Amino acid sequence: MAVISFARGIPAPELLPVAELADCARAALERDGQAILNYGPTGGYPPLREWIAELHGVEPGRVIVTNGSLEGLNLVFGHFAQRGRILVEAPTYDRPVRVAGRLGAELRAVPQDADGLDVDALEQELRRDGTPAFLYVLPTYQNPSGRTLPLERRRRLVELAREHELTILEDDPYGQVRFDGEELPTLFELDPERVLRSSSFSKIVSPGLRVGFFVLPPEIAKAIEAVATDFWLTPSLLSEATVHEFLRRGRLEPNLEVVCGALRERRDAMLGALDQSLEGTGATWSRPEGGYFLWLDLPGGADAGELLPRAEAAGVTFVKGTDFFVPGSGGGRSALRLAYSFVSVDEIRDGIARLAALVPALTPASV
Amino acid sequence: MAVISFARGIPAPELLPVAELADCARAALERDGQAILNYGPTGGYPPLREWIAELHGVEPGRVIVTNGSLEGLNLVFGHFAQRGRILVEAPTYDRPVRVAGRLGAELRAVPQDADGLDVDALEQELRRDGTPAFLYVLPTYQNPSGRTLPLERRRRLVELAREHELTILEDDPYGQVRFDGEELPTLFELDPERVLRSSSFSKIVSPGLRVGFFVLPPEIAKAIEAVATDFWLTPSLLSEATVHEFLRRGRLEPNLEVVCGALRERRDAMLGALDQSLEGTGATWSRPEGGYFLWLDLPGGADAGELLPRAEAAGVTFVKGTDFFVPGSGGGRSALRLAYSFVSVDEIRDGIARLAALVPALTPASV
Repeated sequence: MAVISFARGIPAPELLPVAELADCARAALERDGQAILNYGPTGGYPPLREWIAELHGVEPGRVIVTNGSLEGLNLVFGHFAQRGRILVEAPTYDRPVRVAGRLGAELRAVPQDADGLDVDALEQELRRDGTPAFLYVLPTYQNPSGRTLPLERRRRLVELAREHELTILEDDPYGQVRFDGEELPTLFELDPERVLRSSSFSKIVSPGLRVGFFVLPPEIAKAIEAVATDFWLTPSLLSEATVHEFLRRGRLEPNLEVVCGALRERRDAMLGALDQSLEGTGATWSRPEGGYFLWLDLPGGADAGELLPRAEAAGVTFVKGTDFFVPGSGGGRSALRLAYSFVSVDEIRDGIARLAALVPALTPASV
Repeated sequence: MAVISFARGIPAPELLPVAELADCARAALERDGQAILNYGPTGGYPPLREWIAELHGVEPGRVIVTNGSLEGLNLVFGHFAQRGRILVEAPTYDRPVRVAGRLGAELRAVPQDADGLDVDALEQELRRDGTPAFLYVLPTYQNPSGRTLPLERRRRLVELAREHELTILEDDPYGQVRFDGEELPTLFELDPERVLRSSSFSKIVSPGLRVGFFVLPPEIAKAIEAVATDFWLTPSLLSEATVHEFLRRGRLEPNLEVVCGALRERRDAMLGALDQSLEGTGATWSRPEGGYFLWLDLPGGADAGELLPRAEAAGVTFVKGTDFFVPGSGGGRSALRLAYSFVSVDEIRDGIARLAALVPALTPASV
């Protein structure tokens, strides 16, 4: 029996616009090959940088295009690592937590509730311990929880940021993978001077191209670019030029329709299967309006880490919740992340059935 | 008057195989697009990894393909930074010196003479202070000096390494850009267990693709890959697949003929111009048998940093020697690096004439 993976937060291969990107790569090289194939600006392929700048209403110098956004996150975290504690959500995307750990930065978690970041808890934290180095937050279709910060909280968050001179890093790779619900303004749109923005073409074009980007205040953009010069000198210009060609041909919108349509169907299949099989067990789960992920809390505080090997033996896998919490914080023990991005609707139904069959036998936590 | 740049150590745009690479990118995506465009192995595009592994006679797991070799150098230097002092040549490639500085590593320089690394001086250093974290060396057509370590010194170097359990990192991006002279075994070939090898397709295919690679002992490869997973997750697979397609079509050899032919002509033009205009002034210069660079020592210990603004006013520029020495070491004051890779034969003749016109007026150093 093949294992059904709800662990892999990656796009299904059939959603990648292969033929179009093959033609974009060729066309970009034929048009601008001598620039693309040589060393170039550290901040990225100029036409792509300009496209992103225009989209965000900023000067191109404020945009840094990187080999995937994780690489840029390493540099931004490095820039702030020695300037005080870094606040993250609980739960949060796991890799930046590891990056911060390697940098020796102090991490502190601010809890989420069903609507995402608990802004009251953030306010208490700021009042108690003052302004941190920055707050790292994924407000839209969050990895791992699938939660979205409501408009009113977004407004309060940027107000708090002004009041406490708090720098916010908004990581938003999923924002355009939207199925339903209202389209909310990004934190960057609410305060383009104070909010640092990170995003990527991984979820809306292709991850293997590795094209992420940052929109930063001018002085931080300069500092990051200086470090990047000693790190990668020039990012992969072929990838960036291929993405740019895709954008200038107007292919993003139709591609988003395909991607969002397919993922909406998968999200619906997963929610439907959960409603059918886990309703009334005491398990609860998020109902994402976009993105790749859904967050499941097991009934009775059962241990997701104990469930995992049994689930794998039953032919289904996921990532356990503790992976998305600051180490030692004790959070996420009875939670797990389910990705619906990589699997088909049939696999989703089968996988949730396999998982649900294990839930009644779960031992409630001995508190 | 346009400034003639002997500063830019980059290939002339007309030497880039644009049309062929445009077709390689398209063909690679059409053949293997679903793998290339998704997340993939941290160690690189598997077919390219296998190609490099076969070339070096190692298992693919010992090969890490990175977004340019500088990015990988950052991780390798990071791996060793807290394990003692790092030895570098004087002069050496400037960026790793800055990388080591940012990592807080202790750098110590071992002098070169006209034949490259002074192995006697290295031996004294090892006997006096014990085994360092590693030795970083560019033995072939070195950046910045253009010097090549002779065979006998290569043999002594790997013997010394065995005797002192010294790890050597051989950075060799220029080795295949060979004009004349004997083809020497690499340090890696002389001791594939002890020598870590770094190289790149930047100088033999295209730098803008950003495809560098490392051949490492298995345990170091694993450690670097683990860090890379939190750094770039997956390297730019489109670039790597494009390079692989170029290789599998057998385009490397004919491309090397074009590149080496053109650069040989430029090297000859620069040496001819120097022989004609600086012979007898007391200036001395290296006679590279490959690569991009030539190293010039000014007569009378004159200050290259003082010459630079006057040279730029006269329409020619270069990089001053001090940039290639460990900061504070005082080395390179009267030396400069001349790159012949980017400029045409006519520009080389004009530029050397402009430079040479300034040399008789140079003030000898007040020692």
